[in-house]
Amino acid sequence: MNATTSPQQPPATVPPLDGDPHAPVDLAAFKHAFRRHASGVAVITSARADGTPVGFTATSLASLSAVPPLATFNMARSASAWPAIVENDRVIIHMLGLRNRLVAETLSGPKDQRFVGDHWYRGPHGLPVLKDVTSWMVGRIIERVQVHNNAVVVVQIEEGGMGDDDQALLYHERAYRVPGADV
Amino acid sequence: MNATTSPQQPPATVPPLDGDPHAPVDLAAFKHAFRRHASGVAVITSARADGTPVGFTATSLASLSAVPPLATFNMARSASAWPAIVENDRVIIHMLGLRNRLVAETLSGPKDQRFVGDHWYRGPHGLPVLKDVTSWMVGRIIERVQVHNNAVVVVQIEEGGMGDDDQALLYHERAYRVPGADV
Repeated sequence: MNATTSPQQPPATVPPLDGDPHAPVDLAAFKHAFRRHASGVAVITSARADGTPVGFTATSLASLSAVPPLATFNMARSASAWPAIVENDRVIIHMLGLRNRLVAETLSGPKDQRFVGDHWYRGPHGLPVLKDVTSWMVGRIIERVQVHNNAVVVVQIEEGGMGDDDQALLYHERAYRVPGADV
Repeated sequence: MNATTSPQQPPATVPPLDGDPHAPVDLAAFKHAFRRHASGVAVITSARADGTPVGFTATSLASLSAVPPLATFNMARSASAWPAIVENDRVIIHMLGLRNRLVAETLSGPKDQRFVGDHWYRGPHGLPVLKDVTSWMVGRIIERVQVHNNAVVVVQIEEGGMGDDDQALLYHERAYRVPGADV
């Protein structure tokens, strides 16, 4: 992808990838475009069959439907949480506020440190619930769509809890932020 | 979902929905939780078999994979753009900046007004490309996952263009915003 010389002209294009669906051509531009795209920060948790808690910080959480209440998130099947997503039929989705910035870092840090501490407890279905988030929801997994080495997970929301309000935590241009002014 | 009385206590819970997957119980809480979740603003466009341009403003755009470059977005199958998503094998994904706020409103307004004006041109595959966005990408549709009356659409990015940089456009608490301070 090329920079345009004028915002009034159609953006310049680059040739299509040359037929290899795995070609890394244009990868830097794709990553750059998605870094420009701001997203809210969520944490998804679940548990292995033996009860071991797993979880990860996600920027892909999206609503799919209000009635019934459905949401989606994306993950790599190489992620440490994937075996639990296969074994378990439920996850906890947490929405994070500014006060949860440290937990966002913990749940995206070293896997063996993610549940060391008292920042969580066992909630519905024995699943780990993070404390003091702005809201959390139990999601029953209704689809695991595998695409290459990744998966789109579709959940139906069953119950949940609300915490104190806070500024939403954002991830944008590789930094945590909060929303700014209305425009 | 109930408000908690203390952020140090586990949030209060409400009983599970009573078995009806379409029960609107807890709907207000689900909507409230997702309003708290901030998201970037994108516009997805495509074209009907007869060339008619279609498009909509989306807050569900998410990266699925970098190699190969994959992304997802969610939509209702009742949306005016759905027939084109079924007929066409490609879409254009646009990422919006602050200067594109008006086009975000246009593409979420009355359907018959969305392509009235000179804010777009015919780009690759005859698809409508919005002018002056921060980036746009051609996505080849590789999955249409239908869930109830909705769909998760998975695309593989093939080519695209970059526009001038700008502050990212956000949608949060029913208002357009830009990212604020690093935290």
